[in-house]
Amino acid sequence: MTRSAIRPLLSLGCLLATFAAAAANAPGHADEGTLFGFSTSAATAQQDLERRFDAQLDPAELRSWLKQMASQPNQVGSPHDRANAEFMLAKFREWGWDAHIETFSVLYPTPKKVALELLGPKPYVAALHEPAIEGDATSSLAGVLPPYNVYGADGDVSAPLVYANYGMPDDYQELARRGIDVRGKIVLTRYGGGWRGLKPKLAQQHGAIGCLIYSDPHDDGYAKGDAYPQGGWRPAQGVQRGSVADMQVYPGDPLTPGTGSTPGAKRLALKDASTILKIPVLPISYADATPLLQALSGPLAPAGWRGALPLTYHVGPSTANVHLTVQSDWKQQPVYDVIATIKGSTEPDQWIVRGNHHDGWVFGAWDPLAGNIAMMAEAKAIGGLLKQGWRPQRTLVYASWDGEEPGLIGSTEWAETHAAELQRKAVLYVNSDTNGRGFLGAGGSHSLQHLVNQVTAGVADPETHVSVRERLRAHMRVAGSDKDAKPEAKAIATLAAAGGDLPIAALGSGSDYSAFLEHLGIASLDLGFGGEDDNGGIYHSRYDSFDHYLRFGDPTFEYGVALAKVAGHVVLRSADANVLPLRFGDFSDTLGRYVGELHKLVDDTRKATTQQHQLLDSQAFALDADPTRSVAPPARDSDMPAIELAPLDRAAKQLAQSAKAYQAAYDQRAATGFDLTAAQRQQLDRLIGNMEQRLTDPSGLPGRAWFKHMIYAPGMLTGYEVKTVPGVREALESRRWDEANRYAADTAKVLDRYRAQLDRLTALLKG
Amino acid sequence: MTRSAIRPLLSLGCLLATFAAAAANAPGHADEGTLFGFSTSAATAQQDLERRFDAQLDPAELRSWLKQMASQPNQVGSPHDRANAEFMLAKFREWGWDAHIETFSVLYPTPKKVALELLGPKPYVAALHEPAIEGDATSSLAGVLPPYNVYGADGDVSAPLVYANYGMPDDYQELARRGIDVRGKIVLTRYGGGWRGLKPKLAQQHGAIGCLIYSDPHDDGYAKGDAYPQGGWRPAQGVQRGSVADMQVYPGDPLTPGTGSTPGAKRLALKDASTILKIPVLPISYADATPLLQALSGPLAPAGWRGALPLTYHVGPSTANVHLTVQSDWKQQPVYDVIATIKGSTEPDQWIVRGNHHDGWVFGAWDPLAGNIAMMAEAKAIGGLLKQGWRPQRTLVYASWDGEEPGLIGSTEWAETHAAELQRKAVLYVNSDTNGRGFLGAGGSHSLQHLVNQVTAGVADPETHVSVRERLRAHMRVAGSDKDAKPEAKAIATLAAAGGDLPIAALGSGSDYSAFLEHLGIASLDLGFGGEDDNGGIYHSRYDSFDHYLRFGDPTFEYGVALAKVAGHVVLRSADANVLPLRFGDFSDTLGRYVGELHKLVDDTRKATTQQHQLLDSQAFALDADPTRSVAPPARDSDMPAIELAPLDRAAKQLAQSAKAYQAAYDQRAATGFDLTAAQRQQLDRLIGNMEQRLTDPSGLPGRAWFKHMIYAPGMLTGYEVKTVPGVREALESRRWDEANRYAADTAKVLDRYRAQLDRLTALLKG
Repeated sequence: MTRSAIRPLLSLGCLLATFAAAAANAPGHADEGTLFGFSTSAATAQQDLERRFDAQLDPAELRSWLKQMASQPNQVGSPHDRANAEFMLAKFREWGWDAHIETFSVLYPTPKKVALELLGPKPYVAALHEPAIEGDATSSLAGVLPPYNVYGADGDVSAPLVYANYGMPDDYQELARRGIDVRGKIVLTRYGGGWRGLKPKLAQQHGAIGCLIYSDPHDDGYAKGDAYPQGGWRPAQGVQRGSVADMQVYPGDPLTPGTGSTPGAKRLALKDASTILKIPVLPISYADATPLLQALSGPLAPAGWRGALPLTYHVGPSTANVHLTVQSDWKQQPVYDVIATIKGSTEPDQWIVRGNHHDGWVFGAWDPLAGNIAMMAEAKAIGGLLKQGWRPQRTLVYASWDGEEPGLIGSTEWAETHAAELQRKAVLYVNSDTNGRGFLGAGGSHSLQHLVNQVTAGVADPETHVSVRERLRAHMRVAGSDKDAKPEAKAIATLAAAGGDLPIAALGSGSDYSAFLEHLGIASLDLGFGGEDDNGGIYHSRYDSFDHYLRFGDPTFEYGVALAKVAGHVVLRSADANVLPLRFGDFSDTLGRYVGELHKLVDDTRKATTQQHQLLDSQAFALDADPTRSVAPPARDSDMPAIELAPLDRAAKQLAQSAKAYQAAYDQRAATGFDLTAAQRQQLDRLIGNMEQRLTDPSGLPGRAWFKHMIYAPGMLTGYEVKTVPGVREALESRRWDEANRYAADTAKVLDRYRAQLDRLTALLKG
Repeated sequence: MTRSAIRPLLSLGCLLATFAAAAANAPGHADEGTLFGFSTSAATAQQDLERRFDAQLDPAELRSWLKQMASQPNQVGSPHDRANAEFMLAKFREWGWDAHIETFSVLYPTPKKVALELLGPKPYVAALHEPAIEGDATSSLAGVLPPYNVYGADGDVSAPLVYANYGMPDDYQELARRGIDVRGKIVLTRYGGGWRGLKPKLAQQHGAIGCLIYSDPHDDGYAKGDAYPQGGWRPAQGVQRGSVADMQVYPGDPLTPGTGSTPGAKRLALKDASTILKIPVLPISYADATPLLQALSGPLAPAGWRGALPLTYHVGPSTANVHLTVQSDWKQQPVYDVIATIKGSTEPDQWIVRGNHHDGWVFGAWDPLAGNIAMMAEAKAIGGLLKQGWRPQRTLVYASWDGEEPGLIGSTEWAETHAAELQRKAVLYVNSDTNGRGFLGAGGSHSLQHLVNQVTAGVADPETHVSVRERLRAHMRVAGSDKDAKPEAKAIATLAAAGGDLPIAALGSGSDYSAFLEHLGIASLDLGFGGEDDNGGIYHSRYDSFDHYLRFGDPTFEYGVALAKVAGHVVLRSADANVLPLRFGDFSDTLGRYVGELHKLVDDTRKATTQQHQLLDSQAFALDADPTRSVAPPARDSDMPAIELAPLDRAAKQLAQSAKAYQAAYDQRAATGFDLTAAQRQQLDRLIGNMEQRLTDPSGLPGRAWFKHMIYAPGMLTGYEVKTVPGVREALESRRWDEANRYAADTAKVLDRYRAQLDRLTALLKG
């Protein structure tokens, strides 16, 4: 389901946040030729190993695996989903891995009846069906579930319709200013602008009794490019399926928050599962949405609400009612995680975990199989290395997750089941999901930023033959040179032009890293190529197929191979480094930038509040308004007290000092070829490997204790998109001033614990 | 034709340029209750006069005049155009004015044959016709010319089609990067993004053999609001007519540049008229454009090129040919300017000129008659004042121009015919054109900024009942408070919030002030309300009708009355002031800001050049490009030498000192009630009245000597939009470095002459 996580390859806001970090630590080309975490001799051996790894990657194999695995519908509970798991199990074993399937039984409703009609003088019955498309071989196959949003409620409702744009909080403010109330109505929203699941959740919170989500061609249809099959974009009848579980509270099986869905696990009653909606919701095509939009009168929709359909968008409400029916079979289903292991030769209790999911919404060629086949290629090549006599020093765990689409279920249940062991042993989680042509999108823990930079500097881009990093650098430079580029993009371009490390993005959610990073505090990465492919329009539809991928994805599978190289080198280098290759100064610098952003947020919010109050007090909104088009002044923002960021300032400053001392000690050790005893090395590894856990707080974030990482989290009001220092940032954004102050202090405490452990590491390095 | 001039009520770029000026001179509320240019006793009498003027303005009369004048097609050469002139002549005389019609014979081609068809496998014959619309009484009338672009060439051409977006210079760069050449092709452009006439001119310069211009619903159709007749926006078959004469070189009759089209005037041969195109051009509806756009393949159009039609925009070229025929009757036609005068009692050789045109493209209810009826209301009320015994001290000249639509012809020929007398006598030209509901758009010579502020502070907005100025202030504040507002809008909001004078915009072109301001150097204003009406979609179409105006314009005609008040008070105050109410410090401050902008332009251009060269030298464009979608790097910008703005800096600084000294002397005189002798007063008036002429240079601007004002001009590559300090700014923008340096020196010279005259005024005031 990774669209938002990978597709905007680099979250520019996050990049801006980190560019100072990268600039501060930029090695220029000083460390080219050396490998971070390796002695000189070990580096030479490692580079040879990686060349042998690369030599075994074969695009023809990726293609054949994709064709096979995407040949039938493979959603959770489908026969082919299980067949794919068993196919991989056999492959892992064939390649020399110790593999098994770990099964969880989870709540997984599927539709029994879905229906939608417009009543009144111009009735319309929605087709709710994606027809076969010529040239797309799998589009005519049976076994496809009707388009639906899993974890919406059952319901049979009739009510007037209101159009609410993307259905985000600001959109409801705009409705309110126009005197439109959605209580007792059905809300029509469009995909985009924020995570899908927030749309029905916010509709429900505002009193709506049903919600529709359609794909406007402005966002992923003919306005972006030719529609499938002429081009890759969404055709008129295409529908985006997807989960609407409230994953910002907790992902995974809605009935087992925080624990694995093992046979004996205690399960919530359905009515007590807080991540399941109380109103019905249905995703529809723009062909089905058009008659509904045409039925709306009332105020003209604000300019930013208008899509690309050939009509004038109004907000409604409609005079005719809309009738929506959703009935599901609320059953338990098994999910099949394929887990494959190679035990480390010298550090078996240091785990490098690598994952990608294998369940799709229909055929899942792009999402997730394009990423999964890269992971399989890595596993096969690692198997080949084993046959050549190599063994990793640390343990490798490769996982192909099931049940990601309904809610990160396979990874979450596995991580929750093995939480204690993972927190003891796992030092890194490397995720991927979809993959395409273009530029590497890399996000994750900033202590891994330098490792990502070193790895990507050593992998060639298939199209340009410069390194993946240098191509990304060119992309950043060009993007920032556009005269209309945003300040963030310009800042990044300046950094990219300066040479040295490129920043990585911070992670929110939308793929299987969530449980590892945000629940367990395991340093994580998410990797994938994209930006040149046309996949937006078939996302989560019947047309996410092998045929589509061959034409509009990565036709030669060279980017699949490139992903295998990048992720594989990260894994291999982490497995065999003399010292785990994390650089905490990069995190410290990034954190310093985040704190700077929070200060700016406080200042900007204060200015905006003052300005809004002045405008209200001077009647400016009322005087500006057109009396023939009723738009009321905005609701008055609350007053803003003093905000206490001082604890964060202090903690960030001290961390920066400690990071500097650490780096000096590290450089000293590196200069002497890491002459460490086995015991010292183990102690270092153990402490480095759980540094990220120091950033978690057992009580978690406000209203969502499952999310324990105090620096990275998906936004409660954005969905997949990250909020950094979320306890403070989200409180400020939502004007919960006391909470902002409290979490500034609490976040400072976790930073202090992080710093304390970093100081221990420095002492160890100094010996 | 004033759309671009009035519709974006305030050119934000220009406002930014002037806000420092306004801030510097802001009187706060210190001068409320006093009238600039008046002694205390004279001010009291003047305010009484203006109240008596206001009392005579009757919205019912405006309505009846509009209904009458828009009841038949009134384009140049139509019977009703002449009838309207004679109607006004009779009215002016009835109201006590000395009035006559002044006739010029000008080149005015009208279409004999227009045809457009798509050939090939999916042929389409364009309708080129605007059908009658229910509820629009005049839309079924005969006598309407077919939609055309006057002053395009005759031609009968068949060629492949290329889509070039708005057809502006940047668009051709994008085409070139995609390997698309328009030589020998027909170019399809859309309205918007720059003046209409530039589209075929640039197509011709790039080698095209024909040009089409269509109205995309993104820009003025259903994407903006409901189409006519449900709403006010452009229906599928609506067409925007308009002139494509190269008015940036010279407006008026193409055969008589610089001289009046009087019977004995020397006329150019048609082939030598440089403002007439060499290729045929035709405006079309989006209904007719849709099959043409669908016939295009080739590269996907860049994101900003895509309109609101339900198709994927490609740039082409088409495989099928398009066949375009335009044949016109190249005849001479009379234009009828109605000129009405009231001789000044004490200063008959000081003229206050007020104008609006009366010719439309079809019925012209909005454009121009909504403005013309306000002017008529002023004339009638002034006639009433005459009957009450009042006479203006200075002479009033009211003019209703003909032939504005084809190229500002009536005003230009009149101004050229009477150039010498106007330069001796005319101290002010006040223009209007269309008018609607909302906010005042005011542009003009910045020495008039304070007068406009004082007048608008004394006229009530019909909807909110605060002053027109205070409503505009609220509008500026709210517009700048939007979180997505541009920096200029934010800066203006800050200024507006501070109180005091609001800035006025600089004038480019698009209405009848051009000859007065830019050719003769007469201080000018352009005034009109708008921003709440829906007129974009019927601009220059058959649907610009009385019925449309009644529903979507100013249904109560209260904004017509408000315009009459604003323009009338400007006229009356200028006519009777003790000293002409121009404040040169406002100009000086504005000019200082413009010079600052030029420095920024030099710096930004230098940075962009360096950046582009670095990107090209590092192959960043090539590395960033998708090899499957060929987009070449941009052409290399020329190197940039040192630019010499020092003469401008020096001149601006000295002018600021002189303006300060002038204001001190003026304030001293004002404090003593302007105790001047008649001779002193006449001398002051004469010098104040021709100050603006000091800003002209007889040799004019590069390549267009007709434009003699060195501070304000329409942009050569923007059309109506202003370029301030144009000799320097346009040279910099077009990378003509030597020319920039030369015009920096030349502009400094006119500023020095302006300053010298200002110093004489100061000496006179000091007595």
